[in-house]
Amino acid sequence: LQRAQIRIGILGGGQLARMIIEAGYKYNFEFHILTREPSSPAGLVTKYETAADWNDKDVIKNFAKECDVLTLENEFISERVIDVIEMLGVKLYPAPAAIKLIQDKLIQKQTLKKLGIPVADFIQVSNDEDIKSFANDLNYPVILKSRTMGYDGKGNYKIDSENEINNAVSLLSSRGRLLCEEFVDFDKEIAVQVVRNPDGEVKIYPVVETVQKDHICNLVLAEEDMFKHISGKVHKIASSIVNHLDYTGVMGIEMFLKKEGEIIVNELAPRVHNSGHYSIEGCFTSQFENHVRSILNLPLGSTELCCRAAVMINILGKNNNSNLVMELEKALGYNRTYIHLYGKRENRIGRKMGHITVLGEDINEALRIAKESRKCLNI
Amino acid sequence: LQRAQIRIGILGGGQLARMIIEAGYKYNFEFHILTREPSSPAGLVTKYETAADWNDKDVIKNFAKECDVLTLENEFISERVIDVIEMLGVKLYPAPAAIKLIQDKLIQKQTLKKLGIPVADFIQVSNDEDIKSFANDLNYPVILKSRTMGYDGKGNYKIDSENEINNAVSLLSSRGRLLCEEFVDFDKEIAVQVVRNPDGEVKIYPVVETVQKDHICNLVLAEEDMFKHISGKVHKIASSIVNHLDYTGVMGIEMFLKKEGEIIVNELAPRVHNSGHYSIEGCFTSQFENHVRSILNLPLGSTELCCRAAVMINILGKNNNSNLVMELEKALGYNRTYIHLYGKRENRIGRKMGHITVLGEDINEALRIAKESRKCLNI
Repeated sequence: LQRAQIRIGILGGGQLARMIIEAGYKYNFEFHILTREPSSPAGLVTKYETAADWNDKDVIKNFAKECDVLTLENEFISERVIDVIEMLGVKLYPAPAAIKLIQDKLIQKQTLKKLGIPVADFIQVSNDEDIKSFANDLNYPVILKSRTMGYDGKGNYKIDSENEINNAVSLLSSRGRLLCEEFVDFDKEIAVQVVRNPDGEVKIYPVVETVQKDHICNLVLAEEDMFKHISGKVHKIASSIVNHLDYTGVMGIEMFLKKEGEIIVNELAPRVHNSGHYSIEGCFTSQFENHVRSILNLPLGSTELCCRAAVMINILGKNNNSNLVMELEKALGYNRTYIHLYGKRENRIGRKMGHITVLGEDINEALRIAKESRKCLNI
Repeated sequence: LQRAQIRIGILGGGQLARMIIEAGYKYNFEFHILTREPSSPAGLVTKYETAADWNDKDVIKNFAKECDVLTLENEFISERVIDVIEMLGVKLYPAPAAIKLIQDKLIQKQTLKKLGIPVADFIQVSNDEDIKSFANDLNYPVILKSRTMGYDGKGNYKIDSENEINNAVSLLSSRGRLLCEEFVDFDKEIAVQVVRNPDGEVKIYPVVETVQKDHICNLVLAEEDMFKHISGKVHKIASSIVNHLDYTGVMGIEMFLKKEGEIIVNELAPRVHNSGHYSIEGCFTSQFENHVRSILNLPLGSTELCCRAAVMINILGKNNNSNLVMELEKALGYNRTYIHLYGKRENRIGRKMGHITVLGEDINEALRIAKESRKCLNI
């Protein structure tokens, strides 16, 4: 880096982009945001927000021209747009090939399987019969999934019996092609963030437990030694994925942990991940800062916990109204409690409006505080 | 706080304002900067920068109108401007009375003395004779100081003998009225940050050692228990100052520590302070975040160290040129090393261009790394 001000472009203007910017300002990098709606969460914290449709070739061309490197905050970017960026010769991290591979859950799973990484049994679905014979082998329930564009449970359908197949297929088909997966009877859902830079340096964050609520990440629990017994296995899985993909950036890996200690990789996210928000205060270097470092091929920072326990709770909207009301006075009145509000203009039920992180010596005490603090915020 | 977006105005656009903004974005507050020069360090990280002369009544009026609360990043703001803000009825923190008191080093010292806080002997200076008789009582050297507008050694003159008096007085008189102080033969220079909110909650950061280079803060050393033996005394001093002044915000307190353990308060700064930059990564809540919390009367965050040792080294410009060159690749290649670049357009010898913080288990090892990392940056 020989220039005073490096220009980083982010495709998307949500909270992930916002937190990347908040982490990157310390280096005096300039952040450019391309987003559909103006005054996006990320756009509120930078001078350089372009509100336009990135599916328009000219939009993406003009945006890319004003940036030294591009990255993304969500993987729902069309192949066509990625191709335009590649043709322009502008650096995009994660690299186009890695994004495309992860975008398609079928190809993602096939790749993981080839690498010897345990995944739930799956098949490509062309018609109802495929699901029937798959379920006959494995028993119900099975999970029908859109190959692309699924998130937070959208694009998934749990099929409990044969007579649901037709309905499930017709519901999901509008989102594109489908795959079907074995239902995994897990003990816990766990996740990890891994980061890699173009030089091949790899760092892995602590393994955390994630608790979902209506298919949306609600709680993340991080504790020293909590997953010590499986961390070797997880590290091997995470490194082999990013090394195989020659991956650059932070990747979130969602996994199932079965009772007997078996790990099943559920899904990859080619970006910073909700399960890593606790790292802002809980680790020596946050996932957001390490993402910035990695896409500029800088040395990666320590991913260790800087405390014994950290709990992150999402602030999911409780009301449908456009006037946010908050009561920070009460919610901040707990020890080592940090609140992040994303600046979304409209509150909607279930929408990710912010998050709270609590650090502590004891995970249960941190969890208790996190829940109490959340209750104080009238959002 | 019942509104979604609180607007905080900062008088001044330097690195202190910049780091306040970086810390405050997590709450989705809006930051407005009033600065003489456009594209100031703070202006680079917010949409709302007004480049104008705040001594112009209309400028300050218009700026204040767009903010819910005002604060400052340096104390060199004229009484007239403070009066305009007061007349407008816009909240300014620290409060006008506290700023005015601290601005005048004579009144500042008189106040400390009245509170029973140990300060160096001092007199008000009207003419050369005042200095002569003061020095005859105490012996040379003595320190001649401007009552106002002094910083980083500017406005100070160490008088070693009687024949320097005339020169010293004529040099400093252009800056306004003068005071003269006893020269304190100290063992170490130490500092502390204290923060207080309008509700009267007070939190005090660890006592740190500061090392100056040409009268500019160069190094700050923070270590668990390093000043355990005097921390009770320092806490008493710090609380009594902020409580007496009914102070709101962060205050930096510079002190001398004498061999026998005596503490002499040197100077107060009514703002976040260079000696507290280490707190961004080294403490559970940074001085910048606690400043934001305090001026909004929010509960204050933990000021404890989150590691055993932290070292901050200032990146003081080594060259006079306008093209910054940096080599982050090397400088970031150390464990738990954090680099902050302030975005100043021009590099000048001795100018504060950024800082590096290193966390560790051992203060000497952290210091070694901080110095090595600094050497890698060609600024």
